[in-house]
Formats: sequence, structure tokens, C-alpha cells
Amino acid sequence: MDEIRIIEVKQSVFEDNNKDAEELRAQLKTEKTFLLNLMSSPGSGKTTTLKALAKELSGKVNWAVMEADIDSAVDAEAMQKEGVCSIQIHTGGMCHLDADMTRQGLCELGTEGLDLVVLENVGNLVCPAEFDTGASKNMTILSVPEGHDKPLKYPLMYETCDLLVINKIDVLDYFDFDKEKVVQYAKMRNPDIDIIFISAKTGEGIPELCEWILKNVSEWNS
Amino acid sequence: MDEIRIIEVKQSVFEDNNKDAEELRAQLKTEKTFLLNLMSSPGSGKTTTLKALAKELSGKVNWAVMEADIDSAVDAEAMQKEGVCSIQIHTGGMCHLDADMTRQGLCELGTEGLDLVVLENVGNLVCPAEFDTGASKNMTILSVPEGHDKPLKYPLMYETCDLLVINKIDVLDYFDFDKEKVVQYAKMRNPDIDIIFISAKTGEGIPELCEWILKNVSEWNS
Repeated sequence: MDEIRIIEVKQSVFEDNNKDAEELRAQLKTEKTFLLNLMSSPGSGKTTTLKALAKELSGKVNWAVMEADIDSAVDAEAMQKEGVCSIQIHTGGMCHLDADMTRQGLCELGTEGLDLVVLENVGNLVCPAEFDTGASKNMTILSVPEGHDKPLKYPLMYETCDLLVINKIDVLDYFDFDKEKVVQYAKMRNPDIDIIFISAKTGEGIPELCEWILKNVSEWNS
Repeated sequence: MDEIRIIEVKQSVFEDNNKDAEELRAQLKTEKTFLLNLMSSPGSGKTTTLKALAKELSGKVNWAVMEADIDSAVDAEAMQKEGVCSIQIHTGGMCHLDADMTRQGLCELGTEGLDLVVLENVGNLVCPAEFDTGASKNMTILSVPEGHDKPLKYPLMYETCDLLVINKIDVLDYFDFDKEKVVQYAKMRNPDIDIIFISAKTGEGIPELCEWILKNVSEWNS
């Protein structure tokens, strides 16, 4: 296995993150690279979902993954094992990525010829939602064991996301998780949010998620 | 049911959080009130664990709960239903509590005659670990579905905690969770950390957790 590239990114000294984000988004549009910002709590299954997508996306799109974490390179290693080009971004203790940190990661990765880059943000349901990374679209994962009340408690995450993926539906029987309520609460925060139920473990719903991604990549890059 | 008291706390304009925290801790020591700061990812079972403790602690200690969240009062309502005195703290979007915010909550709660106050921090494995709240001890919950690799990815949380509770062990069979590895990774971050395995749902391990809390309350208040 190739050595994992670990990029230490630093928070920008310039404060205007929204401007940085708009510029990065415009640049990626010109370069025809779709950037998907993937956010969730720790342990909801971001990397496992990307691993499940690896097979489904193979041959349909040129893509790479940027794994952000405070420490360790376990996620980038996991993606590399799946044959997906990936780098590990270390945030130096920061709880989120901003647009400038994302740009540093993209520069190291190199986006030429890439239709899609997935940014796996730091596992955190609060702070990443506050910082526009310059992504084309935002996606969040909520896993069944976390409970259906999360959109009530973490409003901004659901307000800023275009897609909510409900993961670990294979264990629905073992948890008090109300599928109707989670849809109701998420739509209360964001009426336009798309919602897809999956199990990254069994593969259920992965084709539908793949279709959502390919449709959005295609619209962005056309 | 009584109306839930919701306290809107504001971050201190003074920057010296460590000094604030030391002062608050000294004050609580004098007042013989043990403050337990409970941190974890969203959905790991903080409130469910406190509900399970309610029966076990009943009659053994005078206690109350401060539920911190960005929005909603669902947790304070849940505790009140269990007959535990509780208030809801709203952080105004903040991803953590600092010592001054904790003090504001304690003032509203009123600590006279209380042996134990549990502060349920905002669901977040990153930021709450960076801010000393003035608590007597720190505790974190990691639930089985989140995976055993969390101490590798979120070092500070495990470094700052005196107790790690592994929750949802009733679903161990349905997840790839290695009990030995999680102990090894947590001890790597903090050799002195105590570790207790529980299921807040079935009650397994709750007496042991109760014993840990009562022992620490007794030591603090003696």
C-alpha cells in the first residue's frame, strides 16, 4: 500500500470565510470538479458509506476523497484499500474545516481530471455546519443508533445540507428510531432537503445514493 | 409536568477560562457540591444513561441535571419525567460550555443542598474537551455503534476524562466493535482513565456506574 499523504492545514488568518468559499466554489465550477462536503457525528458511518460507494461509483466518475481528522490516518488508509485516491487532512485540533483549509487540501490533492471530490469533514454535528467550505453541495449522515431527535437539537446542520442520509437501517429493529419522525423533523428544519435511507453495511440504498451523487455531479459539470 | 426552565447562557467576554474554571471548582468544593461534566458525541446515550441512573441514585444523593443544547428542551423534559430536578441550558449556537456559562447555569439552578450536579454538555466529541467547565470530574460516553477507533481520532476527549463509559453493549453482536481495542486505545490516550461497560437500555453496568459516581461524590464532599 502506498504511504498515506497527511496534510497539516492551518486556519486562515483572514476572517472572510464566506468570500473565500464563494471564490473556491466558482473556481471548482470552472474546473468542472464537484465538491461534496460530508458531515456527521463521529461514528455515524461516513467512511463506511464512502467505502460502499467505491464499488458503485467505479468506472462512472473520476473521484477522490479528502479525509479530515484531528488525528490518525485510519480513514484515508481505509479508502486507499478500496482503491480510491485519498489524502488525510489534519486540522491541528480544529473542530471543522473552513474554505481556506479546504483549498489547501485540494491543492495537495490536485483536482485535474477529477469530476468529484468528497470532503469527509471532522466528525462533529455542530461546528462544521457553521463554516462554508466552498463545496458544491452539503450532505449529512445520521445513523439509526443516534436517534431520530437530532434535527431538533442540531438545527443548523440540517438547514445547511442538501441531502440527509439515514444510515444503519439494518439495525432498525434494535433501536427506538421513528422513520416518520426523523423525516418530519428534518423537513421542519429544511423543507428542500433530500432524504435517502441506507445501510452502508448491507448495501441497501447505496444505488439510490450513488444516483443522487452522479445526477448532481452531472448538473454541476455540464 | 412543571414548565421546563430554559436558561440562555452567553460566552464570557473575559478570556481566562482556566482561571474561571479553577475559581468555580474551588467554590463548589467549599459548598460540597460535586459537578460531573458529561460529554460525548450526539446520540451516544447521555440522557438515557442519566435516566437509568435516576432510579439507582434515588435516595442515595441529592442531585440535579443541567442539560445543555443548542436548541430544544427535550432532554430536560425527559429528566423531569424521571423525577430529577433539571434545567435546560441553551448555548446560543455555541458548540461547548465554558466555566462562566456553567456558572450561569448553576446560579439559575441553585446548588444549595445538592451533593451532585451533572452537566450534560453539548453533543460534540471535539470542542467541549477544550474548555474546562470547572467540573470536579469529567466523564465521556462512547456507544458501541460509533466504533472502537474513536480514541484514535479524538485524543483530547479521552485525555481530559476521568471516566469512559462504553454504552449500548446490548447491541455488541450487531456491530464490529472490539472491546479489547477500545480499552487499549483509551488507555493509550490516558493510562489513568476508568472504564465501565453499560447498557443504559437494559440496565447492565448501571450499578457499577452508580458506585463510581457515589464514591467520587463522597470523596469530594468529605
